[in-house]
Amino acid sequence: MADTIKLASIGLGRWARVLARSVQRSDTIELVNCFSRAEDKRQAFVQEFDLPRSAATLEELLADDEVEGVIVTTPNDTHLPVIKQCVEAGMPVYTEKPISTTVDDGVKIAAAVKDSGQVFAVGHSARRLSGSRVMKEWIDSGRIGGVSMAEANFSNERGLELTPDTWRWYNDKAPGGPFTQLGVHHADNLQYLMGPVRSVRANTRKVFTEAEVPDAVMAILEFESGALGYLGCGWASPGIYTIILQGTKANLRYDLDFTMWDESHEADDYSSLVSQEMGQVSRTPLDLPRTDMFREQLEEFGRATRGEAEIEVGADEALRALAVVHAGIRSAQRDGAAVTLQEIIDEADATAGV
Amino acid sequence: MADTIKLASIGLGRWARVLARSVQRSDTIELVNCFSRAEDKRQAFVQEFDLPRSAATLEELLADDEVEGVIVTTPNDTHLPVIKQCVEAGMPVYTEKPISTTVDDGVKIAAAVKDSGQVFAVGHSARRLSGSRVMKEWIDSGRIGGVSMAEANFSNERGLELTPDTWRWYNDKAPGGPFTQLGVHHADNLQYLMGPVRSVRANTRKVFTEAEVPDAVMAILEFESGALGYLGCGWASPGIYTIILQGTKANLRYDLDFTMWDESHEADDYSSLVSQEMGQVSRTPLDLPRTDMFREQLEEFGRATRGEAEIEVGADEALRALAVVHAGIRSAQRDGAAVTLQEIIDEADATAGV
Repeated sequence: MADTIKLASIGLGRWARVLARSVQRSDTIELVNCFSRAEDKRQAFVQEFDLPRSAATLEELLADDEVEGVIVTTPNDTHLPVIKQCVEAGMPVYTEKPISTTVDDGVKIAAAVKDSGQVFAVGHSARRLSGSRVMKEWIDSGRIGGVSMAEANFSNERGLELTPDTWRWYNDKAPGGPFTQLGVHHADNLQYLMGPVRSVRANTRKVFTEAEVPDAVMAILEFESGALGYLGCGWASPGIYTIILQGTKANLRYDLDFTMWDESHEADDYSSLVSQEMGQVSRTPLDLPRTDMFREQLEEFGRATRGEAEIEVGADEALRALAVVHAGIRSAQRDGAAVTLQEIIDEADATAGV
Repeated sequence: MADTIKLASIGLGRWARVLARSVQRSDTIELVNCFSRAEDKRQAFVQEFDLPRSAATLEELLADDEVEGVIVTTPNDTHLPVIKQCVEAGMPVYTEKPISTTVDDGVKIAAAVKDSGQVFAVGHSARRLSGSRVMKEWIDSGRIGGVSMAEANFSNERGLELTPDTWRWYNDKAPGGPFTQLGVHHADNLQYLMGPVRSVRANTRKVFTEAEVPDAVMAILEFESGALGYLGCGWASPGIYTIILQGTKANLRYDLDFTMWDESHEADDYSSLVSQEMGQVSRTPLDLPRTDMFREQLEEFGRATRGEAEIEVGADEALRALAVVHAGIRSAQRDGAAVTLQEIIDEADATAGV
């Protein structure tokens, strides 16, 4: 594959391997280099994915002339220095959601990306699931009518398993607990479907977890359109991933189980999208054409590095998803009173001096 | 049926007829009298339900020595004077939810009932649906584990059909729109399942309705237990009635369609309750033994008039359901900041001088 787009992985943990498997499913992109500070991780990654080489330092990787873009999966609170170094070295960057832990870091990343002029993509992959795409079609075509209410829930049992030796235990590393870790997915999904969020009202509670972070989070989003959204995320129950849209012509209910989340080319087979038309109580299952969210977003990134594609989720979209979470965390501190996204973003802009 | 408990209907609109049909399904209770100010309604009701007589005035009905209790289905904002007159005349009263339009009226009704010592029941029937009962069993037995999050939605298309000649158009008659009309059901269901609500954060929006009232309502409830609840109610979509519980051992999802709501002996057949155990992605449909919510609550009321049963939902429970709604309406006016039920109830107590 002479013309395959050449990418490299930075940060070689579990998620790097999930993404590397999705690259293996592609005819468009391939991995040619990788970097982690841990030599044993580099060797294992090279071996598992049959890579031609690895780099002992980030500088060495960024000096590799064959690499057209990097996939950054280092911990969220290291995104800023790593991404800044990459784009300032002239390297396009794909990174995982959330764009960063704090909005301040996110604003600085956005500024660094803008200054560098480099291609930058954030892995808010969930909007690429077939269910999200079909819901969006129903909205854009008017088939669902006007949507006044949108509800989303993303929950799992993580909070019951946390121990003090994991970073997710702590508020400064995982602010809001499931709000940052799970809710940020739906913060993007809901803005993808419903347009920008204006303000957030929220409550966050520690109910059963021993950790510092909450395990029950509920937020009400007000969209700029005037419609309302609900975002629920818990860390104390079996897994849930749902999106429900209430339209003037129909309701849509999307339900996904996690069996195949990591193997994204099969995730749609473990999902259902059901419609209920106005005047009907019956529910109609809809076809969900197979997608492959991880492969597709990395192919889009790869093609964008050559100017052959537009990035769907860049710094702006990722920042707005993160700002929903932080507006919610602040609202919870204010006893539920509404916090606007503008307040959160303006404040971070001021801090960053941008 | 010599020993049948004798009841009478007051207010002979659509809902009186739904309840009268449920009485016809009972061997325990029967209707022997009725009252409406409209003579044609009285005659039609007597004929449809084969009643021995009707009363031309409320006083005449209350003087009927055979009548052991009355079923009041007059408009919500007339509950206070009608119920007061009945209990002060020594007559037990069953009335429909909500107990009243305002919390002030509700507090006055509760005080009048208490002073009179009469049996008093409010028709929060939805908690008697088989799905609610089975969920409650899972909670009480510990089978679901600890519940950190509970979500409920009750919505329909009413707001799209409202015209200025209907009382539901107006904020003073139907405050909060679907919040009072639909949400109050789940305010009771959720407190039945999760215990008392401490505070409410809410947002109410007019999105598509032409009426004064909102058509999109979302509220976050904080229970005294520390768990969180979500209550969504809309008036601009096809019908939805769901309750979802997230437990540390399992999730439960209850879904009812409205095909047979009015014929409550068949409503359970149009419902589904599905469990998802911890560690499983598969969903297991649960058996829903048939109940008959309207008949059962009226039989309970009838037996209670003879001291043979306890009232499950009296003035206190009904007031707490209504107070959730009014705390939510006030929270929305305060930009989402939490409003406690105590604030709402204390204020109404002070106004009522009780």
